[in-house]
Amino acid sequence: MKQVVTFGEVMMRLSPPLNYRLPQTATLEVTYGGGDANVAAALAQMGVPAAHVGVFPANELGYAAANHLRRYGVDMSRCLFTEGHRLGLYFLEVGASLRPSRIVYDRADSAFANLDPAAFNWDELLKDAGWLHWTGITPAISAAAAQATADAIAAARRLGITVSADVNYRRNLWQYGQKAQDVMPDLVAGCDIVVCTEGDADDLFGIKAEENSDNGFISMSQQLTQRFPQIKRVIATRRQTQSASHERICGLLWDQGEFFETPFYDISPVVDRIGGGDSFISGFIYGDAHYESREQALSFATIASALKHTIHGDINLVAPAEVEHLMQGNLTGRLLR
Amino acid sequence: MKQVVTFGEVMMRLSPPLNYRLPQTATLEVTYGGGDANVAAALAQMGVPAAHVGVFPANELGYAAANHLRRYGVDMSRCLFTEGHRLGLYFLEVGASLRPSRIVYDRADSAFANLDPAAFNWDELLKDAGWLHWTGITPAISAAAAQATADAIAAARRLGITVSADVNYRRNLWQYGQKAQDVMPDLVAGCDIVVCTEGDADDLFGIKAEENSDNGFISMSQQLTQRFPQIKRVIATRRQTQSASHERICGLLWDQGEFFETPFYDISPVVDRIGGGDSFISGFIYGDAHYESREQALSFATIASALKHTIHGDINLVAPAEVEHLMQGNLTGRLLR
Amino acid sequence: MKQVVTFGEVMMRLSPPLNYRLPQTATLEVTYGGGDANVAAALAQMGVPAAHVGVFPANELGYAAANHLRRYGVDMSRCLFTEGHRLGLYFLEVGASLRPSRIVYDRADSAFANLDPAAFNWDELLKDAGWLHWTGITPAISAAAAQATADAIAAARRLGITVSADVNYRRNLWQYGQKAQDVMPDLVAGCDIVVCTEGDADDLFGIKAEENSDNGFISMSQQLTQRFPQIKRVIATRRQTQSASHERICGLLWDQGEFFETPFYDISPVVDRIGGGDSFISGFIYGDAHYESREQALSFATIASALKHTIHGDINLVAPAEVEHLMQGNLTGRLLR
Amino acid sequence: MKQVVTFGEVMMRLSPPLNYRLPQTATLEVTYGGGDANVAAALAQMGVPAAHVGVFPANELGYAAANHLRRYGVDMSRCLFTEGHRLGLYFLEVGASLRPSRIVYDRADSAFANLDPAAFNWDELLKDAGWLHWTGITPAISAAAAQATADAIAAARRLGITVSADVNYRRNLWQYGQKAQDVMPDLVAGCDIVVCTEGDADDLFGIKAEENSDNGFISMSQQLTQRFPQIKRVIATRRQTQSASHERICGLLWDQGEFFETPFYDISPVVDRIGGGDSFISGFIYGDAHYESREQALSFATIASALKHTIHGDINLVAPAEVEHLMQGNLTGRLLR
Amino acid sequence: MKQVVTFGEVMMRLSPPLNYRLPQTATLEVTYGGGDANVAAALAQMGVPAAHVGVFPANELGYAAANHLRRYGVDMSRCLFTEGHRLGLYFLEVGASLRPSRIVYDRADSAFANLDPAAFNWDELLKDAGWLHWTGITPAISAAAAQATADAIAAARRLGITVSADVNYRRNLWQYGQKAQDVMPDLVAGCDIVVCTEGDADDLFGIKAEENSDNGFISMSQQLTQRFPQIKRVIATRRQTQSASHERICGLLWDQGEFFETPFYDISPVVDRIGGGDSFISGFIYGDAHYESREQALSFATIASALKHTIHGDINLVAPAEVEHLMQGNLTGRLLR
Amino acid sequence: MKQVVTFGEVMMRLSPPLNYRLPQTATLEVTYGGGDANVAAALAQMGVPAAHVGVFPANELGYAAANHLRRYGVDMSRCLFTEGHRLGLYFLEVGASLRPSRIVYDRADSAFANLDPAAFNWDELLKDAGWLHWTGITPAISAAAAQATADAIAAARRLGITVSADVNYRRNLWQYGQKAQDVMPDLVAGCDIVVCTEGDADDLFGIKAEENSDNGFISMSQQLTQRFPQIKRVIATRRQTQSASHERICGLLWDQGEFFETPFYDISPVVDRIGGGDSFISGFIYGDAHYESREQALSFATIASALKHTIHGDINLVAPAEVEHLMQGNLTGRLLR
Repeated sequence: MKQVVTFGEVMMRLSPPLNYRLPQTATLEVTYGGGDANVAAALAQMGVPAAHVGVFPANELGYAAANHLRRYGVDMSRCLFTEGHRLGLYFLEVGASLRPSRIVYDRADSAFANLDPAAFNWDELLKDAGWLHWTGITPAISAAAAQATADAIAAARRLGITVSADVNYRRNLWQYGQKAQDVMPDLVAGCDIVVCTEGDADDLFGIKAEENSDNGFISMSQQLTQRFPQIKRVIATRRQTQSASHERICGLLWDQGEFFETPFYDISPVVDRIGGGDSFISGFIYGDAHYESREQALSFATIASALKHTIHGDINLVAPAEVEHLMQGNLTGRLLR
Repeated sequence: MKQVVTFGEVMMRLSPPLNYRLPQTATLEVTYGGGDANVAAALAQMGVPAAHVGVFPANELGYAAANHLRRYGVDMSRCLFTEGHRLGLYFLEVGASLRPSRIVYDRADSAFANLDPAAFNWDELLKDAGWLHWTGITPAISAAAAQATADAIAAARRLGITVSADVNYRRNLWQYGQKAQDVMPDLVAGCDIVVCTEGDADDLFGIKAEENSDNGFISMSQQLTQRFPQIKRVIATRRQTQSASHERICGLLWDQGEFFETPFYDISPVVDRIGGGDSFISGFIYGDAHYESREQALSFATIASALKHTIHGDINLVAPAEVEHLMQGNLTGRLLR
Repeated sequence: MKQVVTFGEVMMRLSPPLNYRLPQTATLEVTYGGGDANVAAALAQMGVPAAHVGVFPANELGYAAANHLRRYGVDMSRCLFTEGHRLGLYFLEVGASLRPSRIVYDRADSAFANLDPAAFNWDELLKDAGWLHWTGITPAISAAAAQATADAIAAARRLGITVSADVNYRRNLWQYGQKAQDVMPDLVAGCDIVVCTEGDADDLFGIKAEENSDNGFISMSQQLTQRFPQIKRVIATRRQTQSASHERICGLLWDQGEFFETPFYDISPVVDRIGGGDSFISGFIYGDAHYESREQALSFATIASALKHTIHGDINLVAPAEVEHLMQGNLTGRLLR
Repeated sequence: MKQVVTFGEVMMRLSPPLNYRLPQTATLEVTYGGGDANVAAALAQMGVPAAHVGVFPANELGYAAANHLRRYGVDMSRCLFTEGHRLGLYFLEVGASLRPSRIVYDRADSAFANLDPAAFNWDELLKDAGWLHWTGITPAISAAAAQATADAIAAARRLGITVSADVNYRRNLWQYGQKAQDVMPDLVAGCDIVVCTEGDADDLFGIKAEENSDNGFISMSQQLTQRFPQIKRVIATRRQTQSASHERICGLLWDQGEFFETPFYDISPVVDRIGGGDSFISGFIYGDAHYESREQALSFATIASALKHTIHGDINLVAPAEVEHLMQGNLTGRLLR
Repeated sequence: MKQVVTFGEVMMRLSPPLNYRLPQTATLEVTYGGGDANVAAALAQMGVPAAHVGVFPANELGYAAANHLRRYGVDMSRCLFTEGHRLGLYFLEVGASLRPSRIVYDRADSAFANLDPAAFNWDELLKDAGWLHWTGITPAISAAAAQATADAIAAARRLGITVSADVNYRRNLWQYGQKAQDVMPDLVAGCDIVVCTEGDADDLFGIKAEENSDNGFISMSQQLTQRFPQIKRVIATRRQTQSASHERICGLLWDQGEFFETPFYDISPVVDRIGGGDSFISGFIYGDAHYESREQALSFATIASALKHTIHGDINLVAPAEVEHLMQGNLTGRLLR
Repeated sequence: MKQVVTFGEVMMRLSPPLNYRLPQTATLEVTYGGGDANVAAALAQMGVPAAHVGVFPANELGYAAANHLRRYGVDMSRCLFTEGHRLGLYFLEVGASLRPSRIVYDRADSAFANLDPAAFNWDELLKDAGWLHWTGITPAISAAAAQATADAIAAARRLGITVSADVNYRRNLWQYGQKAQDVMPDLVAGCDIVVCTEGDADDLFGIKAEENSDNGFISMSQQLTQRFPQIKRVIATRRQTQSASHERICGLLWDQGEFFETPFYDISPVVDRIGGGDSFISGFIYGDAHYESREQALSFATIASALKHTIHGDINLVAPAEVEHLMQGNLTGRLLR
């Protein structure tokens, strides 16, 4: 499989152990992640060549963040390390039962937000790539980040590389003066495959469809692909969240007029739900390349995402064989010796 | 809101991490709490002025215990630090599933048990207070503690301060030669509002009523308020304990002839059930002061208590906005960014 | 009660904390256990005299392993400490929800596997014993271990000691050139009581019976006892595994033609499922000696095993009174003060 | 003793455990501190009434920081909690032997830096105070912070309150467009007592004196007090740093023409050198109020600072009796039972 | 070697990790020890048969304490587990450099203090023993404990068993109404060998001798053995405490008129100085039995004690071969592969 | 700088926290390292392109080991992952003061030991390399490993690549039937630069020279280079080990007749001495490429090694700028802000 390249910000994540709250903890667990880089890392540790393009401060924190992804096999050689800005952080309190997990972001003015779009020669950066993946978080960070995203997509189109996006609309993030609704359409127009829920499609593109229904998803997908003809496939997970500790997800795929969905998978307890979406698209990229049928690709993606909910940290540390073990119906978690 | 004052013993709590048992652990997690002080702390960290009156040994353990409450905003300036006695301790093994949590008390002969009732000038101690709260644990500890409780209640009545009590009958605690049945009635007679279950009412006051039924609670409340006419309101939680890891609770209020109850709230998993009752009455004190309707006050109290089950330690570290988020129907623990 | 003697390998168990995976952890939790020694330890800490016969390397790891069992009261004075070989290890990743727990064994060429059968004078080793217990893991390790097992059983028969076995067939373990199907029948022939499921009976002895049905268990037990007339009782747990975090078990006993079974017990969450079978047979040995009725013995064994699933480590650290508390119907895990 | 009031920024401090480096750690230890607030905290836990005036973000991180100081008894009721900015952070790698400890600051654009000087009514804030303390870090943070410092000093002078400053010149901090050399003289002019080394005096005021010599310190003190006649006393510690793990300090005092110094105290190993200077001035404030002789006050300050090097965290958690035990010559650290 | 029997109280020891102080810690490290039991444990793990006679509460804490000693091989089968009293505790803050370690005792009214002397049949308890060891702590705890100590010594004398004592005078402990000076002489009179410093001899027996000098030790030993003719040997360590982190010790032996001493051994850093004296006498008991020369026995004892200072916990976990490695001059701590 | 390639075994290292001993610990800290791979990792994290050639088991342990080196930037793409063998382990107890650190090896029969020399195409593996480094540990592991080492050296010579070796004689390792004295000379004959002490030269090559003297080192170097004319430079550290916690080292270089040495550097306390030699040669490789003078290269190497003693784990995580800071004379570990 050819290299998958991702582009986006990597943050340090700081969370109290177990279910402790920030005002009571004396230690924080540290890991690193970002919606795009998580995809590269999940793929790399599954054996898929993957590279991440990011910008880090040239200090111990930036090096530590890059090391974290390198550890799981991501090619970080195309990342920039710049002086004068900071590493974005987020603080996560892990909820339980009816208490939600909460994130306090502290990512303003990061090295990534202050990137120089001209510093990226995308034709060079993508020269070995077969796939480019980005998320809607990246253009939300700064005008420069949005510009670089546009440049990357344009280069990918020139080079004939598949482009995927998780549109992932985060209202609070868009604070640099432009609106997601103005920026995202042009970017999405360059994609072959998007992760998009009915809610995101409404918020970003004004596409109306019933939420949490198969017909809604199909309708949304039809409207989306009509509006953006480059898009061939739309995928999403549907969540039936029972509590902070109990999640149910299924996977949905609309592929050029055909609709597929998986059963719901039950995750109880949820160990760590951060990165659940990233593991879905990384699973789909893997599955798309390794299985004949679209059902299998979707099944792989959905089970990979379900498994991510049982893994600590942002990155989905599961082997393909583990996903396949569940695809074969082994869903009761029986001890493997 | 005027200051809430609590009176009672604070203990060091020592528990093995996770579900480890005492004979196998090499570390103990330390926190501090007490049924009354927990109420002050929950209120203080919600922004309500709260002071605790207690007695601690004048050594590092006593200072550490007082510091713990001070940390969450409790005014500890009225506490006494005395020589010659010890800090009460309790060891908690946290159960799971069908294995119950267990407490080994080691609280005999504490500084609090050896308090001198004459050391407390309650008219002075309560001069800024609007509310006095105590629990049935305090008069169980020693004759001196019972005397001081009686003195506090008498002063509160003189000063026109609302008095609440969690009657909280603990059979094993009453070991100084008097019976709860002889001591408690006079104390409860001075209260405006009590936390009391049908079981407690039977044990302490010989009041008979069907357990775990609305009619029983109403009947018990009627009998209780007839016997103690100062009492205007009776509140309680009803528990449907499924396992050490799965609790269901609802809140009950009898207010001068009217009966209110909340739905059951499901807590799975339970992170820490210690202080669940204390968080209910502290929630009610908060709710009573901040909401128009009694339903809302009860709902706030019950959800606050449900949330406490997801918080480590004796003290309910939840903000009013967090409780209100659930009151608005957000019960699925969905991640907050 | 007379001494119970067990024979088998003890390994160091290394597991990442919580649900972390091996490639991401920086610490490993260490404990020690083995299917046979776990039985001795559970019994010893319940007050039953118990001794383990094992072989350890004469280095810090071997001493640490022996210490661990000694700590819970097992008489380790009959163990051998030999030069030149290693302590067997296993690495355990604890799963959650639909992700199974996984074990990576690293036990090849251990001191135990290299034991000298002639080093054991079983008549001497068993001289105070009333019961000998072994598991099907021991003869799977090496020809020498199988020989020593045979010697122990022969001595026990000579001395009139009750012999029990957990047949526990582990396909991957049998790698020294002999087949379980050739070795086990002679060993099992010397037993009075065996733990055996329908699946094990089929794999090891070619006994066919419907799996997961009462009739199947009865039929299997009949065939087994006909083939091995020394066997008087067959016991087993039946598992309805819901997920790595949720187990349901019931206990089964076939005793000279009579069949007994317990209700299913629900374990959610599972804290640590390793040693669940060992706690069942140790519970049965205890129950058999302490209760009049076979129902009670079976109930004790099954509840002891259910409780083990809530205890960290291989060894069942529960007191008889705790099991009996549940036998009396207290299954909701209500806090014990 | 009347209340001591401090003014300045409080940061979250994040450090890897032991001597681990940032790129290798999976946990960070969390504490909170600031050069001024550390003084309030050390005094408060010694029993001196102390209040801190600060500005925190109105989020969990801000609350946690304020809680930390409150825990040790600091009156935090005069602090502001504002929306829209962040809590300053610093990452500390603890060195050892010839490897220095390193700090990576991440404090830009904090809530404190963005304070509104008009939000502080200093006459009100200082109305119960007998002493105001500030450090040279505060005016370095922003023009607003410098203005607020000037306002505080002016109010203190109006109210006849003693003012102390630790001039503490940090070149890298002054980045808002003004120079320390322009800002500090006017602020220092309002002080009664300053902590100042020969190096600081040269950097900030162009005062030349031999470094690390008694004569140099005396000469510097004379020049400083001539230039700023309000200043009556100059104090400092002199360090003979042997390694990151081995420090030697003595205390120096110039008091209206008289010079005092202590012996050198050896600290090996150094547990945590952060806050060493803050513990010196807090010790001096305590000593000045509690002892007759200036020698004793200086001795108390210096030993308090030496002890701080053996305490984890920014805050000097030592009791006066502990300092006095060393003042009596007990310098060999003999176990106290 | 015949069995060594010790008699005394075992306490739970609770200490903050590293050099943290009690008011700032959220975890406590747990271990168990006692001056007498530490001797048994050190010997047992060196391969010497050792039994401890003690009294524990019949609860999880008592069982955990007994387990701890059992783990290192001590025969605990002669211990009593009684209802109604508690396990003694002590809290240890580990100092560093010029900050001393501090102990807060919480041992009043323990199960051991409330022992019944008639519960011990010493002739039976000592029937396999060759050596009885006790410390001056035991008779200090209660009149009952002093009586039991006297009974044990009397039985040992009847049975011809060697008796050793570490006189270990702790002023603060003697609080039950009798004075050490009245109780100890009769007990010491029954000993063959005592650990005693010049200071202890003065405090307990009014024997005057220059402290910290060889002549003083010799003079004290002469006076002591003249007064108590059963005593044949007097041993002690001399300490040159540099700081809480740096200790120097040498060993002294007066044996029927002959005097021996070792060089000073430097311990820097000290990891854990608790149990340093217990490891000296246990080392001497081992050395006395295993070496021809008294110099070697004394050297073994002193080096064992020095090594103890580098071991966490009360118990000296060093193998004889490790001590002998140092006796051969390998004092530079060079890595052993 | 061209790529540096290393070849050798990587092991999992398991060590109790702090100074705990194996029989008392419940957790082990995990890291990974090997004498050769440590060199690659130190260089990679300094920015030098570095690749390691190794063999790992194709299981979670093998992946975790490879991840660890990848994390610090080592190109692991040339490593092999094979079925059927294990990852070598070693257990490290960290000593203190006069107690030595101890290693218990458990590395027999590892995947590396069972490598197939034919699996390595060294001309391909070294095609981008400028430097090959190996240690005397590798040929000690197995005949296959020795053969592969010989093959690598031969290829390097063919390709004109500089070859360095740390001869590192470990008597206990050579257990596969050949003697170091027979194997090493042919391997060393292909090297340009060797790390070798007088003791190693005697043990391996029978070269006699005074130990711990400059003349001895010079004499040894002369003899060594006469015997192996390809060798142009000999380097070594000289250690004056004071205790397990206090090391002194200097660096020695003999370069074609010229002798250089550095001052001694004092390391107190030693945090982690494992990998001290590996950091010396990696420092020399870096210094040789980046500095004009041989004095500077040697100084860089020696200070890098000294700093390694303050870093946890096998790998020297120091930046070139940190080493240079000390080269400029900043040896007192003064805090860097």
